[in-house]
Amino acid sequence: MTLDMTIVDDIIKRALKEDMPMGDITTDSTVGPDEISSARLVAKEDGVIAGLEIFKRVFSFLDPQIYTENYVVDGDRIKAGDIIMRLSGNSRAMLKAERTALNILQRMSGIATATRKFADILEGTSSKIVDTRKTCPGIRYLDKYAVRVGGGTNHRFCLSDGVLIKDNHIKAAGGITEAVKRARKAVPHTIRIEVETESIEQVKEALAAGADIIMLDNMSTEAMKEAVDFINGRALTEASGNITVERALEIARTGVDLISSGSLTHSVKALDISLRFE
Amino acid sequence: MTLDMTIVDDIIKRALKEDMPMGDITTDSTVGPDEISSARLVAKEDGVIAGLEIFKRVFSFLDPQIYTENYVVDGDRIKAGDIIMRLSGNSRAMLKAERTALNILQRMSGIATATRKFADILEGTSSKIVDTRKTCPGIRYLDKYAVRVGGGTNHRFCLSDGVLIKDNHIKAAGGITEAVKRARKAVPHTIRIEVETESIEQVKEALAAGADIIMLDNMSTEAMKEAVDFINGRALTEASGNITVERALEIARTGVDLISSGSLTHSVKALDISLRFE
Amino acid sequence: MTLDMTIVDDIIKRALKEDMPMGDITTDSTVGPDEISSARLVAKEDGVIAGLEIFKRVFSFLDPQIYTENYVVDGDRIKAGDIIMRLSGNSRAMLKAERTALNILQRMSGIATATRKFADILEGTSSKIVDTRKTCPGIRYLDKYAVRVGGGTNHRFCLSDGVLIKDNHIKAAGGITEAVKRARKAVPHTIRIEVETESIEQVKEALAAGADIIMLDNMSTEAMKEAVDFINGRALTEASGNITVERALEIARTGVDLISSGSLTHSVKALDISLRFE
Amino acid sequence: MTLDMTIVDDIIKRALKEDMPMGDITTDSTVGPDEISSARLVAKEDGVIAGLEIFKRVFSFLDPQIYTENYVVDGDRIKAGDIIMRLSGNSRAMLKAERTALNILQRMSGIATATRKFADILEGTSSKIVDTRKTCPGIRYLDKYAVRVGGGTNHRFCLSDGVLIKDNHIKAAGGITEAVKRARKAVPHTIRIEVETESIEQVKEALAAGADIIMLDNMSTEAMKEAVDFINGRALTEASGNITVERALEIARTGVDLISSGSLTHSVKALDISLRFE
Amino acid sequence: MTLDMTIVDDIIKRALKEDMPMGDITTDSTVGPDEISSARLVAKEDGVIAGLEIFKRVFSFLDPQIYTENYVVDGDRIKAGDIIMRLSGNSRAMLKAERTALNILQRMSGIATATRKFADILEGTSSKIVDTRKTCPGIRYLDKYAVRVGGGTNHRFCLSDGVLIKDNHIKAAGGITEAVKRARKAVPHTIRIEVETESIEQVKEALAAGADIIMLDNMSTEAMKEAVDFINGRALTEASGNITVERALEIARTGVDLISSGSLTHSVKALDISLRFE
Amino acid sequence: MTLDMTIVDDIIKRALKEDMPMGDITTDSTVGPDEISSARLVAKEDGVIAGLEIFKRVFSFLDPQIYTENYVVDGDRIKAGDIIMRLSGNSRAMLKAERTALNILQRMSGIATATRKFADILEGTSSKIVDTRKTCPGIRYLDKYAVRVGGGTNHRFCLSDGVLIKDNHIKAAGGITEAVKRARKAVPHTIRIEVETESIEQVKEALAAGADIIMLDNMSTEAMKEAVDFINGRALTEASGNITVERALEIARTGVDLISSGSLTHSVKALDISLRFE
Repeated sequence: MTLDMTIVDDIIKRALKEDMPMGDITTDSTVGPDEISSARLVAKEDGVIAGLEIFKRVFSFLDPQIYTENYVVDGDRIKAGDIIMRLSGNSRAMLKAERTALNILQRMSGIATATRKFADILEGTSSKIVDTRKTCPGIRYLDKYAVRVGGGTNHRFCLSDGVLIKDNHIKAAGGITEAVKRARKAVPHTIRIEVETESIEQVKEALAAGADIIMLDNMSTEAMKEAVDFINGRALTEASGNITVERALEIARTGVDLISSGSLTHSVKALDISLRFE
Repeated sequence: MTLDMTIVDDIIKRALKEDMPMGDITTDSTVGPDEISSARLVAKEDGVIAGLEIFKRVFSFLDPQIYTENYVVDGDRIKAGDIIMRLSGNSRAMLKAERTALNILQRMSGIATATRKFADILEGTSSKIVDTRKTCPGIRYLDKYAVRVGGGTNHRFCLSDGVLIKDNHIKAAGGITEAVKRARKAVPHTIRIEVETESIEQVKEALAAGADIIMLDNMSTEAMKEAVDFINGRALTEASGNITVERALEIARTGVDLISSGSLTHSVKALDISLRFE
Repeated sequence: MTLDMTIVDDIIKRALKEDMPMGDITTDSTVGPDEISSARLVAKEDGVIAGLEIFKRVFSFLDPQIYTENYVVDGDRIKAGDIIMRLSGNSRAMLKAERTALNILQRMSGIATATRKFADILEGTSSKIVDTRKTCPGIRYLDKYAVRVGGGTNHRFCLSDGVLIKDNHIKAAGGITEAVKRARKAVPHTIRIEVETESIEQVKEALAAGADIIMLDNMSTEAMKEAVDFINGRALTEASGNITVERALEIARTGVDLISSGSLTHSVKALDISLRFE
Repeated sequence: MTLDMTIVDDIIKRALKEDMPMGDITTDSTVGPDEISSARLVAKEDGVIAGLEIFKRVFSFLDPQIYTENYVVDGDRIKAGDIIMRLSGNSRAMLKAERTALNILQRMSGIATATRKFADILEGTSSKIVDTRKTCPGIRYLDKYAVRVGGGTNHRFCLSDGVLIKDNHIKAAGGITEAVKRARKAVPHTIRIEVETESIEQVKEALAAGADIIMLDNMSTEAMKEAVDFINGRALTEASGNITVERALEIARTGVDLISSGSLTHSVKALDISLRFE
Repeated sequence: MTLDMTIVDDIIKRALKEDMPMGDITTDSTVGPDEISSARLVAKEDGVIAGLEIFKRVFSFLDPQIYTENYVVDGDRIKAGDIIMRLSGNSRAMLKAERTALNILQRMSGIATATRKFADILEGTSSKIVDTRKTCPGIRYLDKYAVRVGGGTNHRFCLSDGVLIKDNHIKAAGGITEAVKRARKAVPHTIRIEVETESIEQVKEALAAGADIIMLDNMSTEAMKEAVDFINGRALTEASGNITVERALEIARTGVDLISSGSLTHSVKALDISLRFE
Repeated sequence: MTLDMTIVDDIIKRALKEDMPMGDITTDSTVGPDEISSARLVAKEDGVIAGLEIFKRVFSFLDPQIYTENYVVDGDRIKAGDIIMRLSGNSRAMLKAERTALNILQRMSGIATATRKFADILEGTSSKIVDTRKTCPGIRYLDKYAVRVGGGTNHRFCLSDGVLIKDNHIKAAGGITEAVKRARKAVPHTIRIEVETESIEQVKEALAAGADIIMLDNMSTEAMKEAVDFINGRALTEASGNITVERALEIARTGVDLISSGSLTHSVKALDISLRFE
């Protein structure tokens, strides 16, 4: 649950430039340059907080002397009304950073909250909730971090660091066996090979071809169960396709290792959090 | 509803680089460099489509000869099962671009669909639905375009191109009158001045101070009605704060000019759209 | 009169990189790395100073410990011989930063000085001097700040934050009325709409169409007077086209609100300022 | 007189982004996407044209199919009323590019025109007019090109590609002789060494130290004559300091090789050129 | 053996900008803008060619119409005197691109040639030659591609896409078992876990901890043999540390899966290749 | 021997981003965020050290509080076993920076070591060893600095800051005389003109044309001697083409001023240096 601030800083700079290509004309004209403000960050609904270090860093870009005091840390469950943090610093800096910082924090906390729901349900099973590449363009690093904060684990970060052989790769290669063989020969030995399957026949072929991970895509719970039993630990298994919180436990009972859900990051409900100046 | 492709291209490049910092190791190892594929883009739920030109452009970054044929245009209502577009081009390019293109299109269509719901409800009233700055960091330009496609209009783009005097600006300036005066003196004459108010007293002061736009923040419908009646066309009025589709018509009946909703862009449900290779 | 240092820093970095793509071969070979120098910044002609914070910041990029002491602040009138500032710091840093810092300061002070001439003449009238988009590519933010320092106000910053409907927009839309209508529908409600007119007929049409600001372009003083009288406060008025200091007062007497001059920024005479090492 | 378009393109992109961070809201709302316009570029005062290729390139960034027809080329003398170029292309592209393209062209032509005045006066003498590093931050490459177009030659481009040992370098090194020795040892053999001198004693020391070029800074015409005679071709000579068109010929008659003037680029009067749509 | 041109283009642009921050002053002053040249690319020593597509692309950045005809493709063995390619195009473009293109091609071919030596020796054994992260800053993508062209395979690309638990990670975690456990929990399931070992005890612990790959670092051939025999296919094995061509076969005979060599990329001997204009 | 840190920082940032596009997944999962480590940097073979300031700076990017203590400085000769530096700081930062820092230091020290060999041989002669543009794309600034550290001097940095008229420029211009004339007219007076010659006839023509530097390319030692004697100090002379350490002294005895060798930077053997954690 560590954030690389070099990556984070690029995202923050871009966000601040997007929101202030020529400054904040309201704040600069109405608020004096040396005024000081205090504020508290308050939860307006229950959830899991994620992104506090980034939230603070947005402010510190505009006021390096910003003072902050955390009452919770990333991953903590918060309740409506909880004070999350106190900040005090230059008024102009705080007013300029507020929206950008909240936009990031609310999205990340929304992702963590949604992931936590899955993680809670899966607790005690052998299945883990994982994310996908269905993230918001440019901030995948934050989206994926929020999933970890919410108790999920990450799937591959991008097309460069994981192999997922899908339908069209299989067709182009002329079959699962050939596709796996080609990938194995070409990619670093440090990377596992995952194959997307839609039937038990494909599962068998993938296993025989030496797949390290087998995705069970859009299968019924029964079909998944059959596949997991057949594989029997010889490869990791991943359930995928229209996964909902409601169906998660049933799927986990098939013994599948991983359950992936695009909705964690493609359909985020921002957690309601507000910054109240004092 | 025009997109400036210089801005769009920066977003696409960043997204592709995020997803392929060192190429697509699956596709490059399993699919030949000169293969050709065709695919159709299909709606899997009802909604309003937004972002088709960007969707195509993502593909054309990787295959400048990509062929596309649209069946709908941005703003059209689509139904589950509708074919939105056909594409054909280099297989590697299509597989590499697919996820990035869909991530953008599904988010934008999700925004347009949500906006359309408000716009439909407000049809026939004098109120318009507008967005906020609660957008995803780095892609505000796309988020705001999608709102226009869905029948909404945009609030200020950022802190540099609009004045919105809030609570803290008012406190810092020592009152609404002084805050408006300071802003008027400092900002270009091409920009209107909006003041956030929370009570009828503030509304009166803002109007007297010469505000061009008065935001009625978190007011009851009755209070809004009183404010709108008092203002009586002497300034534009904007209803703000926890606006829902359910409450929109009731608010519109107060005669308010604008109704703004952060949820349009901060809590987006991606529209379900899929690319099916043939 | 606040400068956003994020924007300023990009300009400074670019300027330093332009001047030292591979270092300063003279200074690095002739001056030791740890030597210290002092210098005073001296006005060599009368004028208005602008850009002192940026001037200092250029030096601090190369020597974060640079010591500076201001004798004046932006907007002050200075006379030939006045000491503006004292600096002391690392000799190499000071020699490397000198030209870049002076290039910026002299241009900005030149702009402020020219603007001040107009502002002084217009003092006591109801007209204000405003700038245009005729700035030096890449440093508009500095040019426009300098205008404010000199007592002017800014016109729109760019094509994205203000509407100015010109001749060709009118022709394309099929008339002033239609152009204003289209713009009003499309742009944020926070932005006023300005129409460029060349005759009293156009003035009348623009006013009827609901223009917020009417530009009186290249009109004789009599025509302007007629237009201003006709408009009678129902829209802001802006005089434009070959405005000179000589003609400014005469124009102001028509009662026009704004007088815009491209020459403030497109034909800048650098203020003569010199850095004298001690 | 060749322009490297890689450098130029960076400048153009930055300028267009500065002027349209979020598009041109006037043009996009009032002009249809497929309209076509024609325009002619007309001189409104006499001068020397410079920057035509860049001017065209700005338009081609927004409309790759823009059609242009030149009537003159860079370096030509133009008269008020002359048609410089005809353009036709997409109306939106033309309206968006217009100001940026003109800002560049007018500045460059202003520089070329001012340089031409010096070059004409110096014609027949052995002196050449050269520029300085007193350019506008970020566009030095354009400023220096315009000087060449106007018949001048360039001094060093920046601190990395030429050695100019000034007063403070001399003091730091402990004298002209030591400074020249240090520089000669450190810098590439492909670079000449220039020393700034203020007296005939310094001239003698610089020459004895092996300077390749001797700058005669702020000297009277008589002192310059004495210096040039003493040097007698053993080094190049450069007159510098408050050079005016009026004084140029007198200075040239001393036999000095180069006359440098900061005003060519630090105090540019934009040449009046206008784009008239048809 | 596919190159992602988005990544390549960034490297080429940076290299061209490094070599021509202000153009090519020799070529632009001596060669006309419209001249055409032809040249042949000739091997001056035996080796394996790598980088031909990038070589061409450098030229096409400066002349999009450059004509090229390949006689060999990446991976081919070439002999001194072989003509590799013919090019013809704009003379200025060819002269400007020449050095940058050759710098890249010669380095890449040097890497491919060195890798080929290992690959030839290992042919018929079960060991493969792999690279390391000891590459030239900024062009790792090219270095790693050249290794593949030479018959090697790649180790992890960077710190983000592979796990290699070294000595210090082990110490910090408190032992191999704990380190593997921590990594397994945190990283995507698509990534294998490699542990660096220096003794048979560590090998045993790593295997028991579930390492997917065990690096045998700086071990004697005997110790490696013992380790490989002990592991017996339960994990991949990698020999590392001062690997030379001379020792490669002996190491391969231990049955190790991978032999990694930093010298492939940290100590490259450029292949002698020359561009001869005709 | 000064490094401009603005240039260096860009290189470091790029290298760190290349190695950690999404963080260091091994270190972040196995090492705690607040652990501290110490390490010593040890030479494993004899050579000349170069790049220590950059080495340290890489670490300080990830831990601004990193503590370092140097035992040697750039240019010192080191022996196998020598401790070069001690470092202590945050463990994560040290592990993440290690490879990038060593890649740079080892390459630079390799270049300095190779250059030192030439410089030692040439000591006492009038010849100096110089580098070429045959450097690694993107880090020429470091390569050229390392040459200086090793006792060499630099040739031109790039195509923009030096004139070297080669074969093809001569052909295009129609002869050496015309080429020199064109270049002299076009380039800044601060830059010398070098001509590449292959025969004594060309040497004579170049000298007559006023070349400042004459490159003797691929000539026999006898031909070089003849050329140097003929030139007799009227121009600088540079020997070029397949220069080896073995042949350097023989060449120097011809009296040539400069001996240039591409191998210094195109075929670098990394100096073996290791960072040992304690």
